[in-house]
Amino acid sequence: MKIAVADRMNHIEGSVIRQFAEAALKPGLITFANGNPAPATYPIEEMKRFFTEALESEHVESLLMYGAVQGFPPLVECLKERLAKKYGFDFEMNDLYIVSGGTQAADVVSKIWLEKGDAVITEEPSYASMYNIFRAYEADLIGVPIDDSGIDVDAVEEVLKTNPKVKLIYTIPSFQNPTGFSTVAEKRKKLYDLACKYDVIIFEDDPYAELRFAGETVNPIKSYDTEGRVFYTSSLSKVIAPSFRLGYLVVKKEFGKYVNVCKQCTDVHSNTLGQYVAWGVMTKTDYEAHIKKAQEEYRRKSSLIVETLKKYMHPSCRLSQPTGGMFIMMFMPETVDAVDFTWKGIDRGVVCVPGSGFAIDGSKPSHMIRMCYATATDEEIVKGAEIVGKLTCDMINGTV
Amino acid sequence: MKIAVADRMNHIEGSVIRQFAEAALKPGLITFANGNPAPATYPIEEMKRFFTEALESEHVESLLMYGAVQGFPPLVECLKERLAKKYGFDFEMNDLYIVSGGTQAADVVSKIWLEKGDAVITEEPSYASMYNIFRAYEADLIGVPIDDSGIDVDAVEEVLKTNPKVKLIYTIPSFQNPTGFSTVAEKRKKLYDLACKYDVIIFEDDPYAELRFAGETVNPIKSYDTEGRVFYTSSLSKVIAPSFRLGYLVVKKEFGKYVNVCKQCTDVHSNTLGQYVAWGVMTKTDYEAHIKKAQEEYRRKSSLIVETLKKYMHPSCRLSQPTGGMFIMMFMPETVDAVDFTWKGIDRGVVCVPGSGFAIDGSKPSHMIRMCYATATDEEIVKGAEIVGKLTCDMINGTV
Repeated sequence: MKIAVADRMNHIEGSVIRQFAEAALKPGLITFANGNPAPATYPIEEMKRFFTEALESEHVESLLMYGAVQGFPPLVECLKERLAKKYGFDFEMNDLYIVSGGTQAADVVSKIWLEKGDAVITEEPSYASMYNIFRAYEADLIGVPIDDSGIDVDAVEEVLKTNPKVKLIYTIPSFQNPTGFSTVAEKRKKLYDLACKYDVIIFEDDPYAELRFAGETVNPIKSYDTEGRVFYTSSLSKVIAPSFRLGYLVVKKEFGKYVNVCKQCTDVHSNTLGQYVAWGVMTKTDYEAHIKKAQEEYRRKSSLIVETLKKYMHPSCRLSQPTGGMFIMMFMPETVDAVDFTWKGIDRGVVCVPGSGFAIDGSKPSHMIRMCYATATDEEIVKGAEIVGKLTCDMINGTV
Repeated sequence: MKIAVADRMNHIEGSVIRQFAEAALKPGLITFANGNPAPATYPIEEMKRFFTEALESEHVESLLMYGAVQGFPPLVECLKERLAKKYGFDFEMNDLYIVSGGTQAADVVSKIWLEKGDAVITEEPSYASMYNIFRAYEADLIGVPIDDSGIDVDAVEEVLKTNPKVKLIYTIPSFQNPTGFSTVAEKRKKLYDLACKYDVIIFEDDPYAELRFAGETVNPIKSYDTEGRVFYTSSLSKVIAPSFRLGYLVVKKEFGKYVNVCKQCTDVHSNTLGQYVAWGVMTKTDYEAHIKKAQEEYRRKSSLIVETLKKYMHPSCRLSQPTGGMFIMMFMPETVDAVDFTWKGIDRGVVCVPGSGFAIDGSKPSHMIRMCYATATDEEIVKGAEIVGKLTCDMINGTV
């Protein structure tokens, strides 16, 4: 049998993160590796209530039958209301589509708009699974730096000036994965203006938006969008639960026909009972209190890891100090290789992810370490951060 | 804003079926149009039990967290056991992957194997949503006829002999959508031999397999597969509920890495609680009794529609008379246009789907009508089939 896989498969790369995630399964390890939300934030009692309510509803037959491609209408409506109220999204011009997680939003957007040879600008480091999605449609990736104030808009403009193949800018503006950095309002506006000037798409990935625990809300780039060139996605994975596989995509109404046909060609629609439960949690419980509780959980855990790392890490290391979300990045001197650091950390009982897991070319050396503080217990965070901190000293001082 | 959609989007066509499905929403209409399973077969009490069990389980946190890409392991195992026992599938050579419905199985297979310009052989008429999936990967479709004994294997060989671009044969061997025809064992074996001879893939779509209500089990083509060139998919939509969005794909183990990376790039994994419930229904209840009850439901409804149609339809019409599944096809003389028939049927209170909804080129005239007898009540089936039968007489006799 000589049947070859399609050429696009040769562009996709295995996830470096998954490799360390597997190492993290060793019993007794403290894991900062998985990009998982805090289990304490799952509304489990509410889930029980609404699954039962759905199955006892007079509409149970339609809730179990094939559903609307766009999504369960009450969930679509309540998400639109929330986004309009919170960020001023314009649903005269735009519409919202339920997808099976932010990953599927990226797959749908790529399938609709990316042609072989198109270029995608992305923050680097960024969420590497997205790289693979763009690669599956044979797009070329161009990385631009990100720092404490967010994406480097000057670098974006340089690329746009010189590369006419750019079709899409991919950005995680708030509490970015992996850095925890957020893009300030001024740069968001600038990025939007650049997209207009050079006629490209912005694909705004905002799964952590609800998890702000310090500072004021900064509106998504989509809030500035009068032309319909910002495609906004967010997820219910961090506010309901990841295993529900639910997210949403906001695009200009006229593109809805493409989103619908792509969704029909992928999984027809997302699971309806999960959508019913999400709608129940959002509209029939004190959802603001639920969100607030989650934010408080992340604030406490974030403080714990920052304080402990600062106490123990070598003074030449630097932290990203997020104001929301679940990730913190530790930047180490160039003498420390992040992959080497990660394996040594596993030997000492903690698993993190090296920056190379978020690079376009994962084989290049990296000197930063991502830690997710969401799933470890408070005790584990303190113990794990001490191990990480002390390991920086030992490696920088050459004692290990 | 001048951003063009990718060229692949220009190959995808809107579903003719959906147009009539929308017409079917007119209150009071009897619908034979939707390809939906019988609601009476949903195990609703069991769903309540297992959703609650999952959420009260000591493993609840992991059931709500991101799950395994391959699927919820106990569900994967129980499906493998069932397929090995029932059909002799070889899970030394193959593995099973949970997907978000058979549609996603087709998307994943297409993404991995179909290159622009590859050709796909398909029964015609067939399930048109699949046409769009293959088109989204810019494959060309080549239709071959299907009759009471199933796919026309001689026509398949003719195509394979003359077209070196063929990479994949798409077939629904049992109770085909839309015809209700099944491919006999001899032709299944022949099709497999042809695939081996010409080194192509068979993508075997078997969602109705459990719904046999007459005759003996005919093993899937996958049962003959010693080379790993048959990719088998089936669905839980017809035995649990469509809105769960769960199906599975069986492929040779060495291809698993591609399936996993594609799944990671699409929706990471399918919703876990639905998988838990499906596993519960399959292993902790009398699942055989549940399947038997569903088969009995379909047998009764099928008999009702066949008997009533035979009683009223014009003698020049012919029926497919399925031995399982949910579809029946009525073949009319060439003087009757199926689209015209469908609209006239809607005027009289019944909605069906014209054969053009299952053609590669939907603009060509068609003289057959698909009826799904799964969702209508017994009374509606009798009343609707009488209307359909009488309409054939009126149209053939020229009195309408």
